[in-house]
Order: sequence, then structure tokens, then C-alpha cells
Amino acid sequence: MAMGDDKSKAIRVVQYGLGPIGMECAKLVLRKAGLQLVGAIDVDPNKVGKDVGSVIGLGKNIDLEVTSDAEGLLRRTEPQIVLHTTQSRVDKVYPQLLTCIEARANVVSSTEELFYPTYRHFELARKLDQAAKKHGVTVLGTGVNPGFVMDALVLFMTGVCTEVEKIKAERVVDASRRRLPLQKKIGAGIPPEEFRKLVAEGQLGHIGLVESLAMVAERLEWRLEDILETVDPVIAEREIETPYLKVQAGQVAGLKHIARGFIGGGEVITLDLRIYVGAEDPHDAIYIQGTPPIELRIPKGVFGDTATVASLINAIPRVLKSAPGLVTVADLPIPSAWKV
Amino acid sequence: MAMGDDKSKAIRVVQYGLGPIGMECAKLVLRKAGLQLVGAIDVDPNKVGKDVGSVIGLGKNIDLEVTSDAEGLLRRTEPQIVLHTTQSRVDKVYPQLLTCIEARANVVSSTEELFYPTYRHFELARKLDQAAKKHGVTVLGTGVNPGFVMDALVLFMTGVCTEVEKIKAERVVDASRRRLPLQKKIGAGIPPEEFRKLVAEGQLGHIGLVESLAMVAERLEWRLEDILETVDPVIAEREIETPYLKVQAGQVAGLKHIARGFIGGGEVITLDLRIYVGAEDPHDAIYIQGTPPIELRIPKGVFGDTATVASLINAIPRVLKSAPGLVTVADLPIPSAWKV
Repeated sequence: MAMGDDKSKAIRVVQYGLGPIGMECAKLVLRKAGLQLVGAIDVDPNKVGKDVGSVIGLGKNIDLEVTSDAEGLLRRTEPQIVLHTTQSRVDKVYPQLLTCIEARANVVSSTEELFYPTYRHFELARKLDQAAKKHGVTVLGTGVNPGFVMDALVLFMTGVCTEVEKIKAERVVDASRRRLPLQKKIGAGIPPEEFRKLVAEGQLGHIGLVESLAMVAERLEWRLEDILETVDPVIAEREIETPYLKVQAGQVAGLKHIARGFIGGGEVITLDLRIYVGAEDPHDAIYIQGTPPIELRIPKGVFGDTATVASLINAIPRVLKSAPGLVTVADLPIPSAWKV
Repeated sequence: MAMGDDKSKAIRVVQYGLGPIGMECAKLVLRKAGLQLVGAIDVDPNKVGKDVGSVIGLGKNIDLEVTSDAEGLLRRTEPQIVLHTTQSRVDKVYPQLLTCIEARANVVSSTEELFYPTYRHFELARKLDQAAKKHGVTVLGTGVNPGFVMDALVLFMTGVCTEVEKIKAERVVDASRRRLPLQKKIGAGIPPEEFRKLVAEGQLGHIGLVESLAMVAERLEWRLEDILETVDPVIAEREIETPYLKVQAGQVAGLKHIARGFIGGGEVITLDLRIYVGAEDPHDAIYIQGTPPIELRIPKGVFGDTATVASLINAIPRVLKSAPGLVTVADLPIPSAWKV
């Protein structure tokens, strides 16, 4: 039968992490003819033991139970790909990634720091690379930001420049339509003083922004002498209500996170990210001062949640063809969509 | 000595073709620390035998003579890279490419049809691929269009889409500032009836537009049932003078070349290219109807002549690292600039 044939050729996928992004990934895997969902991992007691179909909101069971036993599931299902969407920090996900690698599964991960893991976690990155090579698999961190709009797209545009003197990328996101964890991540709805305190504790800010900046600089062979980061609150001027929460006037609507790279005292690269509920004129823009100069604008901006899911799924064919190891988006052929 | 060290490590480059693009390539090779120009080939009797420095307008000699003997030069200089900028058609450049391949030189070429050579020249492409593999070298066709704005960038943007239903890319170029061969290629300054005659004879139109369309469709796994191309004149409404020629009102200012791809009777991909002297609001734009939908705009457009030179030079590191064979831009890692 045609269906049987398709299934036998389909790429076996395990979904690791069933937060909002992971659930959308699982749904897309189920819809894509070339992919077969063979299991799902999560630690949430409200999800473990339940059918994946009901957990991700399909409205029907699909005969797969969510498990917290990653090692057992991977051994039993032997997936070619693990879509990994759990946490943002490399040190937190390191044991999870190692479990996947040792099960000989390639990994496509949304872990923000994994986009350019050598920047903050040189030693862990080296170990992941060694393990991946030893077990013959590829590990990639990607997404929309980091992963696309403020790094890969910037680099891609410099490909038509003979010289690049200065770069600015800006992204203004209206968080109103985004998922609840993201709205919380940006401090929406808290008082400014609490925001400042959380920033000082390193609890707030967009993880991965400096990774984007460091990768762009490295690929352009720029030796940055200094990197400065600032995280400031955007204060709501009026009451704003989202499907998930309410922000009073005077409270924090979100954040303005800017990373700057310097050479010889001059600012050569600026990544300016503003994510807040009620943002006007959301957009992405890239300005390259070079030969030729380039200005690029994406009027409403690339919609983050869907685009992250797309980045992960679209990476699968390139990851399967890649040489083993810990790789980055810039090591692989240009991404593109493939048929559902 | 540092300089000696640099030179001994520098990548040896031969410039094949000294038209406007080739001359700019040669100049950039001379300026880039990691590259060393070791020879230049051209058949123009006004250039052969003269010093490359004076031919490309450096205002000084550089102790390299332009030669028409490609085979002899390549044997003598053993370049790692040939920058090939001679003609637009694969069948015309086939013997030139073969000479480079047999001399074990990797090739980066601006030949428009070579951007996606299997579309029109399946058999020649197969032979080039075989020869390249036999001699252990890589051959790539690239540039700005084809090579970037209406194909690679389009594909790249679909990388953040879970689904793509329809694509339109448009490029409006003011040819006034572009080189004379390009102004002639678009019919600037001729009467409309002559334009029509030349189109009917296949003498006018942008070579490579259908290659761009075919590659995008193939990478998206779209089986196009039909491809339609139209080439129409843009008529000057007033007299326009460029540094190279004058266009009277009523004469041709340039062309409007549109390629359309169809599936099931529906137009799923449209590449709309307008190149004419005096164009207002020159820009590049990409519209993707998909999930998420994407609109991208490059206000003045990527400036073609410089960007083509950049595309060729920036491809060098990736071509040197590539597995042997005839490859396309979509097979290689994302392009980016590198240090001059």
C-alpha cells in the first residue's frame, strides 16, 4: 500500500519537550508526509502517561504515550531525528543532548545558546562535538532568533557585499500575539523595579542575542574587542490586555535588549531587539554599511512562534546530510521549506 | 617575513574574462589579503599582451600580462580558483570550463545559465560534473541575479515557513548607473519594433530568470507543469541620458521580463524583473504566501554590478571546502562576506 510505503521510508522523529513550540513541532511532524512521529518526551506530570494526541490538542489519540524516560524511549524507537525544545541554556540541556547523541539520534534543538555554543560554553560544546562525531550524528541549534533574522539573514545579506564596515539589525516584536512563556520571559505585567531586579539577577533578557552577534562577527572575521549588552524595560503608556495577561499603564510591557560589538572603540555591530506587548510597527530590519550598502525590511517581522517551528523542521533534511558533529546554521546549506 | 608568509598561504586566483565584471573581480582579488592574482585571460586583441594593471585601470603595471592562451596559463600558474566571467550560456562556455577543470582549478563563474545548469543543459551539466569529480575540483555558477535576489534569498526566506503556497519576487533596476553591456542587453535606446524582433530571435531578455524559477521550484519540491516567459519593452516617456547612451522618448528604455510557474493551472511562482534606464523606485521585493506569510523589501535594490563581484569572491572559501563536482548555490553553506 502507498501509505505503508511512505511510512517505511519516512524519517523517524522523537519530540523532546512538549511546551508550546514542541507541541507545534509534533503537530507539524504528524502532518508532514516524509516524517513519522515515533515518540514524545516531557517531564511535566500533567503530560506524562497521557496520549500525545490529546496533550498537543489534536482532539484524538494517536497511540503514543508521553514519557519522561528519554533513554528508554530513544532505545526502543531508534529515531533518526530528535526535535529538542526544552530549555534555553546549554549547560541545562547538556545531559539531554548527550542522551540523544548516545542513542545515535541526530538533534535539531531550539536551545538558544546552542545556536553558537562555543561562545559561552566552549568546553561543553567541545564535548558535544566529540560525542556527536563518535556516535556519527549531527547536532544543530536553530530557530528564528537566534537562528535566522538577526544572524543567519544578516550574514546571508553580506554575501553580496565586497566590504562590510558596520551592521545594524533591529527586530520589533509585538508580544501580544505570542505564547505565554514568551510574555513572561520579557517581564510583561511586572513593575519596573522588579524588572530591574530580575535583570540584575540575569533572569530577564533575550537569551541568544549575544550568540547571534558573536557568530556574525566571527564569520566576518571581525575580532570584537568588546561586547556590551543592555536590557531595559519598555513601560506601558496605557493598559494593554493580551489573551494571556493584562498590563497596567506604568507597568512593564516588555523589554529592549541591545547588544553592541566594538572594534577599535567603534561600534561595528548592533543588534537591537524590542519585544513588548502592544508594540507599534513591528518589523525586522537590517542595515549594512558597506559596498554596496544594503537596507532590508520585513514589514510585520517574521512571526516568531511559527517560524521557529519551521526552522526546526526545515533543518531536518540538511542535518541528515551533514557530516557528524556539533554544527551551526552557517555550516549547513541554505535553509528552505519542503513539502508538507 | 609577514608579507612573504601571507603570499605563500594566499589562494592563487586566475581571472578568466576581463569585461566590466571581470575587471572589478581582478581589482578586488588584488586588494584582498588572502588572495593572489596569478594571471588573467581574455581574447580581446586590445587587451592580450598588455599588463593586467593597465587593462583594469589600476594606473600601474603589476607584472602580469593578459593572455589568450588559457591552457598554457593555467598549466604554468596552477591556480586554486578561476574566476570565470565571460559569457552567459553554458554551451558557449563549456570548453572554457573544461579547460579549467582539466587544469585542476576550482571555478566560480558568473555564467548565468550555470546557476542551475541542469535546467537547459542536462547533458553538458552531467559532463561538467563528471569531469569536475574526476579532477577533484568544484564548479559553481553564481552572481546577484541569478544567484541571489530572485532565487537564493527567496529560498532562504522559505526556511522559516512551515508551508509555502505562492511566491512572488520582483526586482526593479534603474539601468542608468549600470555598465554599458547591461544597457545594451536590455535594448535601451532602440525602437520598440526592433526590440520585438530581437525578442523573437531570442536576442533580448534576462538570461537566467527561468533558471532562478526552476531552482526555487525544485528545492521546494514543486513539480511545475508549465513555465511561461514574457519579455516586453518598457518605453521611455521622456528623453533619458545615461553616462553611456541616450534614449529618446518613444524608444525602448529597457525590459520587463516575467517568468511564471504553474501547478494545476494556478500560478504558484512569479519572478518579475524590470530593468530600464530611468526606473523610478528601484527595489527588490519578495512576497511569500504561506505560514507565516512573509514580505521582504530592499528599498533601493541590491546594486547589481558590485554585488555580482561580491558573490563571486565571497564564494571562494565555500567552493574550496566543497566536495568535488558541479554544485549550485543551494548546495553550499550560506554565503557571507570575508575580510578584505
